[in-house]
Amino acid sequence: MSLGFFLTIEGIDGSGKSTQAGKVASWIQQELGRPVVWTREPGGWGDGEIRDMLIRGDWANSYTEMLLFFADRCEHCTRVITPALLDGSVVLCERYQDSTIAYQSFGMGLPEGLVAGVFSSLRLPVPDRTLWLDVSLEEAMARLSARGAGDRIEARGLDFFKRVREGYLSISVREPDRFIRVPASGDPEDVFQRLKEELVRMLCS
Amino acid sequence: MSLGFFLTIEGIDGSGKSTQAGKVASWIQQELGRPVVWTREPGGWGDGEIRDMLIRGDWANSYTEMLLFFADRCEHCTRVITPALLDGSVVLCERYQDSTIAYQSFGMGLPEGLVAGVFSSLRLPVPDRTLWLDVSLEEAMARLSARGAGDRIEARGLDFFKRVREGYLSISVREPDRFIRVPASGDPEDVFQRLKEELVRMLCS
Repeated sequence: MSLGFFLTIEGIDGSGKSTQAGKVASWIQQELGRPVVWTREPGGWGDGEIRDMLIRGDWANSYTEMLLFFADRCEHCTRVITPALLDGSVVLCERYQDSTIAYQSFGMGLPEGLVAGVFSSLRLPVPDRTLWLDVSLEEAMARLSARGAGDRIEARGLDFFKRVREGYLSISVREPDRFIRVPASGDPEDVFQRLKEELVRMLCS
Repeated sequence: MSLGFFLTIEGIDGSGKSTQAGKVASWIQQELGRPVVWTREPGGWGDGEIRDMLIRGDWANSYTEMLLFFADRCEHCTRVITPALLDGSVVLCERYQDSTIAYQSFGMGLPEGLVAGVFSSLRLPVPDRTLWLDVSLEEAMARLSARGAGDRIEARGLDFFKRVREGYLSISVREPDRFIRVPASGDPEDVFQRLKEELVRMLCS
């Protein structure tokens, strides 16, 4: 659809999405001179009310969370992402539909066809490319513990994150051109060097 | 699905749903001696946070409202409606899926197949019967004005409510066994006499 370029960053909690997104945004702006709109889900459209409900969690019906993510995404797209793309910007979004597939479908067990079907019915923009920061579970968990977010692992269990990673792996096998696996363990500068190679390929050719 | 009986009440704003629901609940409890769980959408499951967002409105994307109604419905069903049905109660619910078809699809123009498709994917209970209080637009608007809710008409316009009524009419034509039109203009006691005839037919045979 876009005059701009829609780039999303995905990965399990602790995979380094925000750190790398900052480096990616600076690089695109400084090296390519292209305007970047850097945003994230949920809540990237300014009103954090749906995001706050999602963070609190505690749903009796496992579809509720998925529907709230989609409600949040609709507003995010209409208010932020689509206008920025029409304006020619590079939109860099941490988490998007692939997170819903990985977390709600692979992680929580909702039917993948349903999650994909609702997304496609809503006619929201599809990312041009997605960078998947693939880090080992052990390293992600160590990073989360180091920043005091160990309760997030406790709450959902290691097996949950293992299934989420398998979700991302499954998308990367099905859509290798869009959904690009980038090994993301180790030093953040080394990870960014790998990302930069991908950015050159996707934005400078 | 149910051991109980799932009865919904529908109609445009100002059609007398709450007034009649009170009479219906008392009659079933007192005349039939059956336990009644009387509830409503949105927000009938206790936490009014999604309901408050829906009342405030102001969405940039027309699908957001539909998704929030469904999120609210999922919690309502899992926490209130389904347990009450399994418990053998009559569940009496003001507004349910037919409101989403009438308001979001006929009123706001969302594709009906999509609204119906999401509902069916969520595997929520389908009402055994629905009483549609069909009042003339003029009378509904006069009642709303009388109780100081005239701004609701102003906000959406008369044509909107006309389309919503056409939505209800369309459902009644397609599902005449479930979706029962009850003329609802005039004195509330007269309307209730008509409802009572329907209640006898559906609950005492």
